[in-house]
Amino acid sequence: MKPVKLGIAGLGTVGSGVVNILQKNCADIERRLGRPVQIQQIAARRANPLCDTSAYAITQDVLAVARNPELDLVLELIGGVTTAKEFILTAIAHGKHVVTANKALLAEQGEELFKAAHQAGVILAFEAAVAGGIPIIKALREGLAANRIQALAGIINGTGNFILTEMEQGQRSFAEALKQAQQLGYAEADPTFDVEGIDAAHKLTLLAAIAFGMPIQFKRVFTEGISKITSVDIRNAAELGYRIKHLGIIRRSAKGIEMRVHPTLIAKEEMLAQVNGVMNAVMVQGDAVGSSLYYGAGAGSLPTASSVVADIIDIVRILENPQQHVPPLAFSETEEQALVTMDEVETAYYLRIEVHEKTGVLAHITKILSEHSISIEAIRQQAVHRQSGLVPIIILTQKVLEYEMNAAIAKIQALPETGAPVARIRLESF
Amino acid sequence: MKPVKLGIAGLGTVGSGVVNILQKNCADIERRLGRPVQIQQIAARRANPLCDTSAYAITQDVLAVARNPELDLVLELIGGVTTAKEFILTAIAHGKHVVTANKALLAEQGEELFKAAHQAGVILAFEAAVAGGIPIIKALREGLAANRIQALAGIINGTGNFILTEMEQGQRSFAEALKQAQQLGYAEADPTFDVEGIDAAHKLTLLAAIAFGMPIQFKRVFTEGISKITSVDIRNAAELGYRIKHLGIIRRSAKGIEMRVHPTLIAKEEMLAQVNGVMNAVMVQGDAVGSSLYYGAGAGSLPTASSVVADIIDIVRILENPQQHVPPLAFSETEEQALVTMDEVETAYYLRIEVHEKTGVLAHITKILSEHSISIEAIRQQAVHRQSGLVPIIILTQKVLEYEMNAAIAKIQALPETGAPVARIRLESF
Repeated sequence: MKPVKLGIAGLGTVGSGVVNILQKNCADIERRLGRPVQIQQIAARRANPLCDTSAYAITQDVLAVARNPELDLVLELIGGVTTAKEFILTAIAHGKHVVTANKALLAEQGEELFKAAHQAGVILAFEAAVAGGIPIIKALREGLAANRIQALAGIINGTGNFILTEMEQGQRSFAEALKQAQQLGYAEADPTFDVEGIDAAHKLTLLAAIAFGMPIQFKRVFTEGISKITSVDIRNAAELGYRIKHLGIIRRSAKGIEMRVHPTLIAKEEMLAQVNGVMNAVMVQGDAVGSSLYYGAGAGSLPTASSVVADIIDIVRILENPQQHVPPLAFSETEEQALVTMDEVETAYYLRIEVHEKTGVLAHITKILSEHSISIEAIRQQAVHRQSGLVPIIILTQKVLEYEMNAAIAKIQALPETGAPVARIRLESF
Repeated sequence: MKPVKLGIAGLGTVGSGVVNILQKNCADIERRLGRPVQIQQIAARRANPLCDTSAYAITQDVLAVARNPELDLVLELIGGVTTAKEFILTAIAHGKHVVTANKALLAEQGEELFKAAHQAGVILAFEAAVAGGIPIIKALREGLAANRIQALAGIINGTGNFILTEMEQGQRSFAEALKQAQQLGYAEADPTFDVEGIDAAHKLTLLAAIAFGMPIQFKRVFTEGISKITSVDIRNAAELGYRIKHLGIIRRSAKGIEMRVHPTLIAKEEMLAQVNGVMNAVMVQGDAVGSSLYYGAGAGSLPTASSVVADIIDIVRILENPQQHVPPLAFSETEEQALVTMDEVETAYYLRIEVHEKTGVLAHITKILSEHSISIEAIRQQAVHRQSGLVPIIILTQKVLEYEMNAAIAKIQALPETGAPVARIRLESF
């Protein structure tokens, strides 16, 4: 099958991630599409050591990619507003579909760009522009399309969330946390866009337009940053049962649509309060679905590229076979996979063993576990149970093969000291 | 624009939800599609008082809907395996697109149905079959299509999660919690499908096929229910820092693909551990995106219907305009919306007011708040600060209009006792 020919403008964090994904997962992606995706041309000032571009034609002339008649679709991963806009408009004028991750450009001048794409009959896709790897644009635009959206609240700037998490968990000041974010590469030398909420306001602008079907209106977003949040306030909030998060909020009220970005206290039990570090999450409330939440990495090379490549796949699926563009089971052909029997599965384990109190019973149990290469993570012996006269022993193990655990439990069950069926529950971490 | 003509088979919980959404949100849905969706025929044994079907033709003959040449697409919301299968195959044979929420049928006989749909060139959509209102099928199949999926762990049976949550938070036995679930309508009189994990295994089967592009293999899922979980184990787990959740897990390991449903200890801090009551959530780990999570209502009339209607919208968008089937900003035309100025926004508030300790200062502050109709939710006076000599007063307010709060803060700031700028952070709940 004829490959899809792709042009990439920009080879920074996101661009190199896209190259890496298209190389590493090319077989799976071809199986999803029924045809391969081929990088045909890249525009970049220089090669990026984070990806191997030796096989591709590299030009310094960005617009050459936008105009290249061989390309089916192009990616705008330059960032900034001026060249990026010229690139997108040129590509659209040349009949090419465009994928971009440029939230600032779309939030400030999106109306013009979407109009140009519509008139030219091409797709301008931008999943990566909001919340990195989380497919929140698709969820709002398609997955929740039955709903009248009532409200949306998002942690949509990872840098800000990292700083607030550090201030709370690491008991640091804002300045210390910001410095750490800069050292780890999460914050720019000039962190204004992130900490003053401008980046979040860009993303919120796009979410609001999609949620309510209204024009893109960046200038109307009320924006307040986190630079004035103090450790004292974070501590006070914690004592009262709250965490402070920097939220982008849109809400439909009787008066109209609210659009605002500001630090916000939310109760510790809420799902959004669990979102820590550089992670992002968006809570959406719809009249049919109720509350739903989308959580994941909001930035970074591979997560952002994950959304760029998803847009590429969406577009190619439509080019390929508009009527049945998404295979119902995700791949155009199924492929048998080796299935693992339960015996071979490895998990940690919780065990509750109820024993008659006798000298050496614990030694017998630990010896059996050790014979089956089962390491103990924690062990607790509880007080004797009044009615049964049995002593519960609680054990957490490290990871163990299921058949070893089955064999060990059978032996423990057979011990004369064991007075009840051994309770066993697997333990996992995700 | 010509309406899309829809046939509905089944008018139970999900069917009535679909009718309600299509009626209530018809204007928004038409704006998303550029054409209206019209219910043309319904097959049901009787009318359902939960929705108004007086305007539609109702037949008791399910297959009449599947054969009706006037219909563009039909919904299979009958449930069960026998009639539902005949309905779907008949509709496909008559060239109709089909939307279904029937996980049991798809997990057990999906291969045959998807093959028939493929051969007939029609779409068989099933977002509602897994995790109710959460668009997890779309996320896996499209949003995360760039990824090689490594693992997936889901709370995909609301009844089981409700029971486990009640056992933990309400300190009930399994039998008591089950009884409560039955009284609330969350569990059937015969709860086997839910509590023994069969329903979760049906859903996991579909997720596994989509995640790994492999055949649908329900019989290969290891399935263990929650009926043997005791309060004792839940308490022990809690003491060790864990919660017990009934998870569906698929994982790619060196040996192959694991597919299993069983009770599982997970650390209390994990996102999945926060999912309580009848809510569902699916954690997906991909090689590019890392960990991402999708949370929402897994059952119920409107949430499940939310996914059915999303499938309808997907299909109509493709019928309508295959090349640009999803409008980039979700709606085919934007519509101006009234925007709310920040002055008119209502939120609760956290205030930190640092005052010189003088008799009556608290009375002055509360009087100002009261003059602006601001109710106090909580108030704390802290110890005098050693360096500044100021006393911090922490106040949580109830919801208040922003301009009232601004005016009140200005007055408090102007009090002679106020010794530092008033710190103010909004407080929300989602």
